[in-house]
Amino acid sequence: MYMPNFREIRFAEKKEEIFFKAAEIFAKKGYEKTTLEEIAAELKLTKGSLYHYFKGKEDILFQSFIKAHSLAVQVLSKIVERKDIPPKVKLCLAIKEHIKVLTTKFVYATLRQQELLLPAELRGEVRVERKKFQQMFVSIVHEGIEDGTFKPVNLKLVSFAILGATNWVARWYSPDGPFSPEKIGEAFADYLVGGLEK
Amino acid sequence: MYMPNFREIRFAEKKEEIFFKAAEIFAKKGYEKTTLEEIAAELKLTKGSLYHYFKGKEDILFQSFIKAHSLAVQVLSKIVERKDIPPKVKLCLAIKEHIKVLTTKFVYATLRQQELLLPAELRGEVRVERKKFQQMFVSIVHEGIEDGTFKPVNLKLVSFAILGATNWVARWYSPDGPFSPEKIGEAFADYLVGGLEK
Repeated sequence: MYMPNFREIRFAEKKEEIFFKAAEIFAKKGYEKTTLEEIAAELKLTKGSLYHYFKGKEDILFQSFIKAHSLAVQVLSKIVERKDIPPKVKLCLAIKEHIKVLTTKFVYATLRQQELLLPAELRGEVRVERKKFQQMFVSIVHEGIEDGTFKPVNLKLVSFAILGATNWVARWYSPDGPFSPEKIGEAFADYLVGGLEK
Repeated sequence: MYMPNFREIRFAEKKEEIFFKAAEIFAKKGYEKTTLEEIAAELKLTKGSLYHYFKGKEDILFQSFIKAHSLAVQVLSKIVERKDIPPKVKLCLAIKEHIKVLTTKFVYATLRQQELLLPAELRGEVRVERKKFQQMFVSIVHEGIEDGTFKPVNLKLVSFAILGATNWVARWYSPDGPFSPEKIGEAFADYLVGGLEK
């Protein structure tokens, strides 16, 4: 089994720290108005040393999008693959866990940025990652329609409605707001799954 | 009754034309990468003449946000006020009509821009407008819970889920896509209202 050495672990940790801090500043000021100097200053690094980790500001935004989407994919794929729970439970779990991911500061801060700020080829890569987790919701709803648990709805449109409702959480959620991620997850799962049941 | 004169009508029409063209270019290239020169060139105007209509690029974006939200408010307020239809029909209608607004090119192009690009005080004004139409969805759901048509759900969270699902349409809708605004509206209304019924 491959074991990363101390230097590699430190590198990965520092990179993570830069990601998180950059997302925080982007969310507060907007990507365009943020400079690499500010990100470096907040981390007590020089601008030059940021280039050990990232090619530049655009690369930070790009990798943040990929990372945010991959987190969602990781969490959802484990749920999709489960054979021990019926589609209804699976969809509840997927909605709750997706909301947990979306309400982490790094993820919602990143998703509040505009993908259009990335050049077209990088946007394409982000889209590929996003389609993966969209497809997972589609596959769970499909499973429930197939086995007769869910109403025979328009699979794609209803999956998009579920994705819209949940993804929108990243837009309005605030850790200082009245609702915890768990509370949001439960209310959304009840409502969105309830609407599918026969 | 006040009648605008020919000069005023021409002014209003030209301003509308600038709005629509700017939204189109912002949606394609992103707000930050678009220059006033480009907007002017596309409209066969000089950059200088744009200043008769707008204070600058920021003002175009600001007024576009206000206009897009006001359109939604206008449409929804007429539905909210109706006394001749029960909450269930009202909510179906609100979802369908809201989606019609969101799938007009000017509205979805504008809503794809990042509000964070506006200075804080202008963002505040946009937020006021947006809260108005959010509140309309809340009031319809509230009406249905009160009269016993809808389940006693968490009013705010379920309204946010409905708003998220519908608002998200502005993100993914394409006039070249497989679904018409009417088709999306019907599927969304069926699903989202169905989930509330007892």
